[in-house]
Amino acid sequence: MTRIHQDSFTLSTDGRGTFDITGEVAARVAAADVQRGLCTLFLHHTSASLIVCENADPAVRADLETWLARAVPDGDPSFRHDAEGPDDMPAHVRTALTATSLGLPVAGGRLDLGTWQGVYVYEHRHRGHRRRISLTLVGE
Amino acid sequence: MTRIHQDSFTLSTDGRGTFDITGEVAARVAAADVQRGLCTLFLHHTSASLIVCENADPAVRADLETWLARAVPDGDPSFRHDAEGPDDMPAHVRTALTATSLGLPVAGGRLDLGTWQGVYVYEHRHRGHRRRISLTLVGE
Amino acid sequence: MTRIHQDSFTLSTDGRGTFDITGEVAARVAAADVQRGLCTLFLHHTSASLIVCENADPAVRADLETWLARAVPDGDPSFRHDAEGPDDMPAHVRTALTATSLGLPVAGGRLDLGTWQGVYVYEHRHRGHRRRISLTLVGE
Repeated sequence: MTRIHQDSFTLSTDGRGTFDITGEVAARVAAADVQRGLCTLFLHHTSASLIVCENADPAVRADLETWLARAVPDGDPSFRHDAEGPDDMPAHVRTALTATSLGLPVAGGRLDLGTWQGVYVYEHRHRGHRRRISLTLVGE
Repeated sequence: MTRIHQDSFTLSTDGRGTFDITGEVAARVAAADVQRGLCTLFLHHTSASLIVCENADPAVRADLETWLARAVPDGDPSFRHDAEGPDDMPAHVRTALTATSLGLPVAGGRLDLGTWQGVYVYEHRHRGHRRRISLTLVGE
Repeated sequence: MTRIHQDSFTLSTDGRGTFDITGEVAARVAAADVQRGLCTLFLHHTSASLIVCENADPAVRADLETWLARAVPDGDPSFRHDAEGPDDMPAHVRTALTATSLGLPVAGGRLDLGTWQGVYVYEHRHRGHRRRISLTLVGE
């Protein structure tokens, strides 16, 4: 019988960077006792985002940050929205370029990710924030 | 009992920019009488896209446009696909960089978005178009 | 009765570029005998991605590659992660900028895409790879 299971958790970030939530999500999928289906993650913010990224070499995420910091520089004088500082508007652009929701398969009672895939919250603000992530599981 | 509800609507854009569809989507979720589940939005076009963006200060979306217009300039001479004008191919690139589908949680009978999150259709063409958005609700 | 159907297939790419999987996905949706619902695609890799793109003029995808190759150049000296060559880290950045999962509507027993929409695996590595794509169908 197909059923819905919802869950959510809060992550405290300590500033710009990526935070691995793969284990947290996997534990919640296991607790939901869903054997197969879909786990949709949603981040309830617009200055942080979700990515699926290589999980073996931390340099991958450091290099992604290098690219984003150059492509969407803090303090861009063409931005008008800077109420919260020079990283405010760049955080919104970075969010639009990455993801706010992700649909992940669940099979055999667990998240069916590729070998090198991790799921990360990408905090785009320099100051730490509390970020809410929700899971909607549809499965059986 | 988990069930499927599908719906769709058409938005007439008046040229490049963002169009808030949060209220329209929320009304259709309410009408579907789904208490909790997943609402997947899909835009049936390749020169417009979907974004989740800050909904308080319109300058955020104006600045996002400033960034995109600079990163993916109209009339780029390296583009070969320009049958419909200098904004044709940039519209396809902008679409690839943002989203064609979004998975949104439904809880308590309504869209469970963050306080500052709005859902927008981003029209990337300078001329207005009719854009079809479909909703697939899976819930109970 | 809402049910879950899962399927997956492997695509052998022959190097950087886009590979049309619309027909393969459509055939699997048809075989699943789901009349309406949601088909979530997931790519189990971090150096290739999924896009929905214009399917009529191949120049669109060639121009998208032109743009990405310029925006995320191979051999960027600021990247530290280059164990697998000058296209290794750019492949991860390109993946973050596009999509790892897509939620596609199913209606009338088939994928309900727009007229000009195709679904593509975007191989970002210059060398060919075997790429696994999974489908999770939730429908009735």
